[in-house]
Amino acid sequence: MPKTIKKVGVLTSGGDSPGMNAAIRSVVRTCAYHNIECIGIYRGYQGMIEGDFKEMGPRSVNNIVNKGGTILKSARSSEFRTPEGREKAHEHLVKAGIDALVVIGGDGTFTGGLLFNSEFDFPVMGIPGTIDNDIFGTSHTLGYDTALNTVVDVIDKIRDTASSHNRLFFVEVMGRDAGHIALNAGIGAGAEEILIPEEDLGLERLLESLQKSKASGKSSSIVVIAEGDKIGKNVFELKDYVEANLPEYDVRVSVLGHMQRGGSPSCFDRVLASRLGVKAVESLLEGKSSYMVGLQSDKVVLTPLEQAIKGKTEIDRELLRVSDIMST
Amino acid sequence: MPKTIKKVGVLTSGGDSPGMNAAIRSVVRTCAYHNIECIGIYRGYQGMIEGDFKEMGPRSVNNIVNKGGTILKSARSSEFRTPEGREKAHEHLVKAGIDALVVIGGDGTFTGGLLFNSEFDFPVMGIPGTIDNDIFGTSHTLGYDTALNTVVDVIDKIRDTASSHNRLFFVEVMGRDAGHIALNAGIGAGAEEILIPEEDLGLERLLESLQKSKASGKSSSIVVIAEGDKIGKNVFELKDYVEANLPEYDVRVSVLGHMQRGGSPSCFDRVLASRLGVKAVESLLEGKSSYMVGLQSDKVVLTPLEQAIKGKTEIDRELLRVSDIMST
Amino acid sequence: MPKTIKKVGVLTSGGDSPGMNAAIRSVVRTCAYHNIECIGIYRGYQGMIEGDFKEMGPRSVNNIVNKGGTILKSARSSEFRTPEGREKAHEHLVKAGIDALVVIGGDGTFTGGLLFNSEFDFPVMGIPGTIDNDIFGTSHTLGYDTALNTVVDVIDKIRDTASSHNRLFFVEVMGRDAGHIALNAGIGAGAEEILIPEEDLGLERLLESLQKSKASGKSSSIVVIAEGDKIGKNVFELKDYVEANLPEYDVRVSVLGHMQRGGSPSCFDRVLASRLGVKAVESLLEGKSSYMVGLQSDKVVLTPLEQAIKGKTEIDRELLRVSDIMST
Amino acid sequence: MPKTIKKVGVLTSGGDSPGMNAAIRSVVRTCAYHNIECIGIYRGYQGMIEGDFKEMGPRSVNNIVNKGGTILKSARSSEFRTPEGREKAHEHLVKAGIDALVVIGGDGTFTGGLLFNSEFDFPVMGIPGTIDNDIFGTSHTLGYDTALNTVVDVIDKIRDTASSHNRLFFVEVMGRDAGHIALNAGIGAGAEEILIPEEDLGLERLLESLQKSKASGKSSSIVVIAEGDKIGKNVFELKDYVEANLPEYDVRVSVLGHMQRGGSPSCFDRVLASRLGVKAVESLLEGKSSYMVGLQSDKVVLTPLEQAIKGKTEIDRELLRVSDIMST
Repeated sequence: MPKTIKKVGVLTSGGDSPGMNAAIRSVVRTCAYHNIECIGIYRGYQGMIEGDFKEMGPRSVNNIVNKGGTILKSARSSEFRTPEGREKAHEHLVKAGIDALVVIGGDGTFTGGLLFNSEFDFPVMGIPGTIDNDIFGTSHTLGYDTALNTVVDVIDKIRDTASSHNRLFFVEVMGRDAGHIALNAGIGAGAEEILIPEEDLGLERLLESLQKSKASGKSSSIVVIAEGDKIGKNVFELKDYVEANLPEYDVRVSVLGHMQRGGSPSCFDRVLASRLGVKAVESLLEGKSSYMVGLQSDKVVLTPLEQAIKGKTEIDRELLRVSDIMST
Repeated sequence: MPKTIKKVGVLTSGGDSPGMNAAIRSVVRTCAYHNIECIGIYRGYQGMIEGDFKEMGPRSVNNIVNKGGTILKSARSSEFRTPEGREKAHEHLVKAGIDALVVIGGDGTFTGGLLFNSEFDFPVMGIPGTIDNDIFGTSHTLGYDTALNTVVDVIDKIRDTASSHNRLFFVEVMGRDAGHIALNAGIGAGAEEILIPEEDLGLERLLESLQKSKASGKSSSIVVIAEGDKIGKNVFELKDYVEANLPEYDVRVSVLGHMQRGGSPSCFDRVLASRLGVKAVESLLEGKSSYMVGLQSDKVVLTPLEQAIKGKTEIDRELLRVSDIMST
Repeated sequence: MPKTIKKVGVLTSGGDSPGMNAAIRSVVRTCAYHNIECIGIYRGYQGMIEGDFKEMGPRSVNNIVNKGGTILKSARSSEFRTPEGREKAHEHLVKAGIDALVVIGGDGTFTGGLLFNSEFDFPVMGIPGTIDNDIFGTSHTLGYDTALNTVVDVIDKIRDTASSHNRLFFVEVMGRDAGHIALNAGIGAGAEEILIPEEDLGLERLLESLQKSKASGKSSSIVVIAEGDKIGKNVFELKDYVEANLPEYDVRVSVLGHMQRGGSPSCFDRVLASRLGVKAVESLLEGKSSYMVGLQSDKVVLTPLEQAIKGKTEIDRELLRVSDIMST
Repeated sequence: MPKTIKKVGVLTSGGDSPGMNAAIRSVVRTCAYHNIECIGIYRGYQGMIEGDFKEMGPRSVNNIVNKGGTILKSARSSEFRTPEGREKAHEHLVKAGIDALVVIGGDGTFTGGLLFNSEFDFPVMGIPGTIDNDIFGTSHTLGYDTALNTVVDVIDKIRDTASSHNRLFFVEVMGRDAGHIALNAGIGAGAEEILIPEEDLGLERLLESLQKSKASGKSSSIVVIAEGDKIGKNVFELKDYVEANLPEYDVRVSVLGHMQRGGSPSCFDRVLASRLGVKAVESLLEGKSSYMVGLQSDKVVLTPLEQAIKGKTEIDRELLRVSDIMST
């Protein structure tokens, strides 16, 4: 029989994403709603090792539902990868009377949480927070929807100047291993081509596509490229390649970078964060552990952390077809 | 055996919503992709009656994926409710060689389309475009996600001034029959209470909730109210009622109104519009008729128009609980 | 010879406006830069009466330059209008060792500050913070530029739906006594007519203008109306009047209300706030008192508070002509 | 005595900027208001050489006041630098009956216009359109205010993630020869240091400043760098230098690039564009030529094109001090 949970610790770890604050708020308020205590742990697992804790009540999280970043800060901790580090972290939790954890982050965050759970039999629930949407077991990670809106807003601006000058732009977006941002924001922004890690389009096809685009009378072209696209060239090499092969094109490059991680979360991400926080805390209270809370078919569900870590998300291949048709 | 489709007409009807232009673009380009012609019909069914048509090629829809409103205009047509009106409309379609229709709009649009189909055996496909998200058979209607973001952005602004003055605001949002906008935007904006048509919260509970909010030390309160909420008072009467019963509150009212229908569509709505447009046209080409294309569990599916019209969407009651917990 | 200033109090009072936080930050950091202390006074003059003070160092104002509202809160204080109230306030200042004040707000704020100065010979500097831009001695008040952007953004959204339906919208914006917002945002949003308190356009001319607009083939019309316009009808009465006289028009009304006070300040307002805060503190350190810092011809200048209160700002009549020409 | 102007040509040239469409709209409608014709010339001087013209009436410019980019397109024309090119252009103008020009752009645009005027005695008026604000004779160029807002919005997003991770970001903004964007957006975004072309801050001082920032307990730091800053290193070399000298810092780089040129213009830029367009056309009608219309002390004034080209704009050195104080 699981011991009763009386005090929950919450932390954010890894790359931050919009909606993390809304998730923290949800965890804190769900604890208060159920009359249990909540402790904020600063700077992820590193702060756990250092005992960098703060009591949080419902008023500690006023007016953060709409703020980007994370008020608990995030960090990567190499010390937590050592048994000594985790031992120290455990001691701090015990000393503070914390008897369960909600960890908000991505794969690395969940791996740490699962290991911690297995070593100390400590209840842990994960909330998927990353803009890349590359977590198995949830259709949407926190921050992904916001990042898509940020990217299309920026490409809309680039389109203004591209159209005025009949120019070709290569826009690099985040996604080392996953093309979700590139594929969806590319369709949303009306990109002529989209290069993603999951698919090797081939350089020949890119050239053909650009030639066709020119021939069809388009006044400008945008190619959206995920950081980790399969084509084997970085965005600047790609520019050189295209200019060498299609001299009629004057290519401009824009690397969007970290701005994609920030900004006020979209309504979708705020609601998702609120729902996931409730489910994470209430699952702990029901005695569950080592699950990730996520969204599937618009419903909040649990996935074992182990599966969430090992599973692989797939892009929706229908979208590749839609992208093709849209660039007619 | 269905006759071959060679020319598709597309129109927008009823209240406009963000993403309608992206859907028009998708219909036009999917036609071009399959080498069939596409005709834009202006001002919905009224323009059909008047033969207000325009040929559209892939370049006709350049740079509209990110524009609010509808380039084809929308209108309500009382003439189309008469057999004579529909007869005229049919003659214009035949004369123009149009042999299938994609109609973008809500319940009324679909009812008109279905009637037209039954009278003239004319292939019709519907795309759900309305910010209210009150169409059966799709988890999301075009424009709904954008409207949610518009509403939370505005309430964030109102919250700034509410917090500075420790004030209570009543914010009325769209939704005569459906509380989707109020419920989701209310959670997203951190509303203390949310009043919706599906649920009679009761005036007593509203007063209690506001008193509890004050006692808990909140610096400001926002109550989000759907136009058609069940509580039986309009937003100004509600203000009077609360001020009479809770004299410590100085209530301000904000009616958001039509701004909720406009604005550049979110990435989600642009991608959804692109997907639905492809499916609508390709379903017609496969000989299907009288369906609505929609989204279920993140997949594009067909629902018979008849069901889409008669079916009733339900709010997700989990969200009522989440809202309650969030206002702790 | 003026006594040396060692501790400055800062408060915000009256209606809040975007940029107030940036001004607080500037006052706090300018004090730190000159090695003097700074005390934040909560809720304007009311907090001064109650001794609701907080020490502020440069890190107290981290990450607020871009936040709407005011972290010091604002309030209107009837008690401060009594000699007893001001006496109490003075005692609290003396007790806390505060020897000068920076007050951020509008006319009422400055009137209070000037009275306080005359009664207790207490150094006071004013910073103009109001979205209405109705303060004499400065071309721009804090928040005005942000409010203009908020208003045009919203009207752009309304225009989307107005164009789709060929509709006429009446949009009411803030400005009981001053037409600055209506006039500038009206031009910026492409309004057909603009009604302001400074000018009685006449109902006849409004009807003529709307008829001309219809005749000229415009697909939609927006009329921007300041709260305090001279035409002697509120926006709903005006709707009835126009619909009675021009039955071809179906008028929609949108009252923008308090959202105009909120939101992240524009770059202009942030820079202005930073400049005014520096000048306010440094002027106090130079022994000056009872001035308002403001902007004239892009330079920061001082205006005696007495003049700032009594003087009247004028709209730029060139803009009335520009508006006329733009609605051709 | 000047000949009567009956038909005005308008073009945009050089780098595009937000507000150019609003200026085109203003030129077109001012012409209509005065019952003279207006011809849009596509792709700047190149389109003039090719006779790529289009008649424009007041309805041609509906709904563009809020659109980024330029509907007339822009281009750089090497052919216009040859006497033959200008001869061709002149022939096209004469043939089309155009008897005066409004050219919207920057220094290069004005140089071309002035040369054309001197060779053919052809009336020309210039409107300053560039985001860099580096034109003598006007306090603000079209697009500058919008670009500032775009930059602070993006840096706000970067700040979210920087704060979450206690990171240092170098953000490169536009400005090869002018530090206006860097200086104002840097203050607006709360940058710790700002590097501009007009001032050699020195690498030593940058290191000191960053060390001081760390010591003062700041949770993150942003350094804003103009493309053409004097420090003699590009932003990536600067990153390497700082990391070599301050190993405690993990520097991230963000190059904002062309997005700064796009986007819906701010209210300020829309109003400015409207005012400048009116003045440009009406000055031509008064028989004036070879002036730039601009803003000085909030008033629209004329500056001889020759001065506008030769004059040098200065940054406001007060802002350097304000920036210093703000980073306390």
